[in-house]
Amino acid sequence: MATSPAANIRPRVVVIGAGFGGIYAAKRLGKLPVDVTVVDRKNHHTFQPLLYQVALAVLSPGEIAQPIRSILRDNANTEVVMDEVIGIDAHARRVHLKSGAELLYDYLILGTGSTHSYFGKDEWCKLAPGLKSIEDATEIRRRVLLAFELAERQTLETGTHPPLNFVVIGGGPTGVELAGAISDIARVYMTRDFRHIDPSMAKVLILEGAPSILTAYPKDLQQKAVEQLAKLGVRVRTGARVTDVQPGYVMVGDERIESVCTLWAAGVQASPLGRMLAESLGMPSCLDRRGCVQVDEHLNPPNHPEIFVIGDLAHVEENRHQIPGTAQPAIQMGRYAADRVGLLAKDPAAAARQKPFHYFDKGDMATIGRKAAVARIAWPFHANWSGFVAWFIWLTVHIFFLIGLRSRLAVFRQWAYTYIRKQDGVRLIVGSQSLPGWDALATPPASSEDEATMAARS
Amino acid sequence: MATSPAANIRPRVVVIGAGFGGIYAAKRLGKLPVDVTVVDRKNHHTFQPLLYQVALAVLSPGEIAQPIRSILRDNANTEVVMDEVIGIDAHARRVHLKSGAELLYDYLILGTGSTHSYFGKDEWCKLAPGLKSIEDATEIRRRVLLAFELAERQTLETGTHPPLNFVVIGGGPTGVELAGAISDIARVYMTRDFRHIDPSMAKVLILEGAPSILTAYPKDLQQKAVEQLAKLGVRVRTGARVTDVQPGYVMVGDERIESVCTLWAAGVQASPLGRMLAESLGMPSCLDRRGCVQVDEHLNPPNHPEIFVIGDLAHVEENRHQIPGTAQPAIQMGRYAADRVGLLAKDPAAAARQKPFHYFDKGDMATIGRKAAVARIAWPFHANWSGFVAWFIWLTVHIFFLIGLRSRLAVFRQWAYTYIRKQDGVRLIVGSQSLPGWDALATPPASSEDEATMAARS
Repeated sequence: MATSPAANIRPRVVVIGAGFGGIYAAKRLGKLPVDVTVVDRKNHHTFQPLLYQVALAVLSPGEIAQPIRSILRDNANTEVVMDEVIGIDAHARRVHLKSGAELLYDYLILGTGSTHSYFGKDEWCKLAPGLKSIEDATEIRRRVLLAFELAERQTLETGTHPPLNFVVIGGGPTGVELAGAISDIARVYMTRDFRHIDPSMAKVLILEGAPSILTAYPKDLQQKAVEQLAKLGVRVRTGARVTDVQPGYVMVGDERIESVCTLWAAGVQASPLGRMLAESLGMPSCLDRRGCVQVDEHLNPPNHPEIFVIGDLAHVEENRHQIPGTAQPAIQMGRYAADRVGLLAKDPAAAARQKPFHYFDKGDMATIGRKAAVARIAWPFHANWSGFVAWFIWLTVHIFFLIGLRSRLAVFRQWAYTYIRKQDGVRLIVGSQSLPGWDALATPPASSEDEATMAARS
Repeated sequence: MATSPAANIRPRVVVIGAGFGGIYAAKRLGKLPVDVTVVDRKNHHTFQPLLYQVALAVLSPGEIAQPIRSILRDNANTEVVMDEVIGIDAHARRVHLKSGAELLYDYLILGTGSTHSYFGKDEWCKLAPGLKSIEDATEIRRRVLLAFELAERQTLETGTHPPLNFVVIGGGPTGVELAGAISDIARVYMTRDFRHIDPSMAKVLILEGAPSILTAYPKDLQQKAVEQLAKLGVRVRTGARVTDVQPGYVMVGDERIESVCTLWAAGVQASPLGRMLAESLGMPSCLDRRGCVQVDEHLNPPNHPEIFVIGDLAHVEENRHQIPGTAQPAIQMGRYAADRVGLLAKDPAAAARQKPFHYFDKGDMATIGRKAAVARIAWPFHANWSGFVAWFIWLTVHIFFLIGLRSRLAVFRQWAYTYIRKQDGVRLIVGSQSLPGWDALATPPASSEDEATMAARS
């Protein structure tokens, strides 16, 4: 190591990415005799498990996002830099930032997560936004709400009720949560608000390429999920590979499926920082198919005990199963990496005795609308639950894990209003007032040229 | 009138604009035997007096904006159309919408308010955003917060602390509130968050062309305002006409004033609907200098008792003084117009006896930072107050007038956290991560070409 424990210089730790992994690593590093720099492109940490609730106008962005500076304010040894990493020099132990600054490190913790993958069809991005950031969530909110407004306007003008088909591509947890929530707001909250259209006529369709949805869940929960979705009026089509996304419709093979609003929840790929690291290490082979970095039992890439890759940028296997890319593994990896940095810096002998990383699996959950969910519980006992009980567990767990008391109270209050009293959420349409493909949908069979409507991402 | 009171057809009332005037008119029309259509380009009503608190990250957009549909949900006779008015045919009593639909009316209430005026220099708009909408507020929030982040990054890289000058153009209530709030977040909330820069070194300057700020207020309150601003470190320059706005600086005559973030609070002009109406009436002379419609004592333009112009789109004089363009007059005009529609439809004789519109002046208030304000109180007694007492009155009044119990509770909670406990507000940077002119500022004297950064209005 460049910095020996005996030397009186505090080791410098650079944490890249302030998702769950990075934040929990930084929090623990705050108690250690090291100097920490946290780098993120955004000024805020996003509580991703609730992002779909911002997209569907239940919560405000400010309720699930918090400035990184304020989360880490009490760490006297930590500084936060809002910047983009454009290069890693693993040999010189240096990180290059877009602004031109360089950061030297003794230990590097890399947790920049993943981004949408359109399987090479990046042009679909404008037509079917995915859900990874606050910007994505408000853009989805804009599109979903605008679809109802445009339908109302159209019916006022022409007297005919245009179809309101929402298509969600991908049947993982995000796709299921988005689809359930769209159906919910259409059927529960919006019916009172329109005079000409009937929002409950909205149809929501999940298109999943695999033979089942929620592939990470046990078979019985997959089945329960389909049943609960059906109760909300959400149709599920499995084995349906989307071959094209166009303004106003999607293609599954030769079949054209009309869509007033298409959302993408199908594929993710690793953040480009994974490739950047692999190239710097001279080991492109350490990436898996999605670009995640394959790390050893201490979360290090080969031969670099000073570099940790955590969260869903890391490919970690236990019992030949890859650890899922959700919040819990990221948190546990972040804490493990921080602890290990502390041991390596203070007492390498103790570090040599440290147990390998082990994912303590508490389970997985996905909500289905306003009062159902599926929950695979692995701790404190094993159980598969679905329906209202699972939903209630989901609610409790997510309130508990929100960072900061203020957010917890605010989200609890908002949920109480929205779920119990059926009051309004945050149904603001901010930004552009057009939808790609709307004109074509509203007046078939004219062709649409309405693609340039994404300019004002709100 | 096309619809006589005797006929069994309910009169159709079209309300254009869902600001204070339009919303209060529509609420009252909900109790009358008429059919109401409310048209607005946005899907939400914005509580404009608190917009600056969204711009300065104290409140969330969802706390001061509410969907028009949900505000008017209980009005069974009212429909809401989210659309843009592109033409008024006063002869045929018809309103043309951008979507192609047409609305026929028996009574028209026009309250589309005002917009920024850059005095013909519309290119300044990108460089010095004004504050009229949620979009404006989040854009200002982005710029103000980003200025601190970029300064921190710059200091990390070069070791030199770049100047942090904020320039607010215009010393009316909005300018004073913005300037005070910037100084506040810099000096109270942000000092704990940065390691390299000292946010309290931020300088805020108000440039006002007139001989004094807050010209609508009594002289002693103007003086108090300057003193209270000085305590917050905000400098005020009166008689300072801005002659140019450029990325990174503004010009006052030959003097160049550096500015990391320039905000516009100088001029307003009437919404283009005023001109549209005047042209349809064949009376371009009924517009005043700013494009407001000069109306009679019943808020009607000449010879058109079925058309009402309300809020700050209307030019109404009492005792030779123009009624100000704030929320209270708009609310009162909205209610008056609705009442008059009711009388005209039911009992024209009673309408003939109706008293002219009279503005019941309760006073004016403007906050100066976190615990000071100036208040001209006209009811229930006359008094000019400044300082903490005025601020407390401001707080109470604004909580009271927020539409909807939910918003009131949410805003109260947020204020309690922010003002009393000095907790974080909603300091999210959403959208583009560059500032016009930053590079030029950070590395003078190079020239800047960073203008194209407004693409992603967030």
